[in-house]
Amino acid sequence: MVKVLVPIAEGFEDIETATVIDVLRRAGIEVETAGLRGNIITSMNGVRVHTDSRLIDFDRLTHDGIVLPGGDPGFKNLLKSDMVKKVVDLMAKNGKVVAAICGAPIVLAELGLLNGVRATIYPGMEKNLDMPRGDKVVVDKNFITSQGPGTAMEFALRIVEHFLGKQKASLLRKELVA
Amino acid sequence: MVKVLVPIAEGFEDIETATVIDVLRRAGIEVETAGLRGNIITSMNGVRVHTDSRLIDFDRLTHDGIVLPGGDPGFKNLLKSDMVKKVVDLMAKNGKVVAAICGAPIVLAELGLLNGVRATIYPGMEKNLDMPRGDKVVVDKNFITSQGPGTAMEFALRIVEHFLGKQKASLLRKELVA
Repeated sequence: MVKVLVPIAEGFEDIETATVIDVLRRAGIEVETAGLRGNIITSMNGVRVHTDSRLIDFDRLTHDGIVLPGGDPGFKNLLKSDMVKKVVDLMAKNGKVVAAICGAPIVLAELGLLNGVRATIYPGMEKNLDMPRGDKVVVDKNFITSQGPGTAMEFALRIVEHFLGKQKASLLRKELVA
Repeated sequence: MVKVLVPIAEGFEDIETATVIDVLRRAGIEVETAGLRGNIITSMNGVRVHTDSRLIDFDRLTHDGIVLPGGDPGFKNLLKSDMVKKVVDLMAKNGKVVAAICGAPIVLAELGLLNGVRATIYPGMEKNLDMPRGDKVVVDKNFITSQGPGTAMEFALRIVEHFLGKQKASLLRKELVA
């Protein structure tokens, strides 16, 4: 079974996070949400959610990929976390899928992972990217990036497509009325 | 300030619920989430969230509207709740905004509120409606209905437009990259 890690920071973007968890779990992907500080985290819009675990001791490669939701201050809190950077770097260098949306692609950029890689980010933040693209979702090598809440559905469906193929993503799109 | 009530049932649809809360709060609308049983509720896809209150003692008309998220078994749990039906009926008969998405329009239909009213619902459930329409979002009188997770963003933006006008909805659409 495909297993994906989703770090949850204080101030995470509600729609982006819910969409990734919802769409991937519907697809049969095992999603582990991991709180940066404890396991009850408050979203950008004031919703408190419980995470499956805490982001500690993640130096073993037990996941097939990692997905970083955005949100403000969510992406800034991801950027401040040494553990997040360590896990993202380890996953990227081992060819695992590394996906990020909204402001979160900046975490990948700061680690130098997007040098020579096409990527997208929340509009206005393109200067942080080496090869910015204006698409809703960009897939290059093992990196999948996207722009914001309104592109979260396409982002999540592309992650499903990457792991499970076009047909699964297409069936899911119909189920979701997307 | 516009104030909207969002009943949260066990098995609520993650994307639909997060999108309504997120978009309306970004617009400056006061959103009160109210759990049907207690104030920690688990979503359709296994995420536990805290609600602002519990759905008790809501016979006073202190809100300008109510929004019912879908999800399975979410909409079935809304349908089983006498309190939900009482509040929806009271709001509808006092001309408040009554909005529902996915399977949740069936709650309005069961109360007879959609007789002679154009509405939409999750594809395949149209037989429950008096005047079904195939649009992503349908607005008729004080009723706003929509189809599913993939139409949640348009649904939420139409609710914002209804309360605060086209310009506010348009600005928000840009902010959300929608």
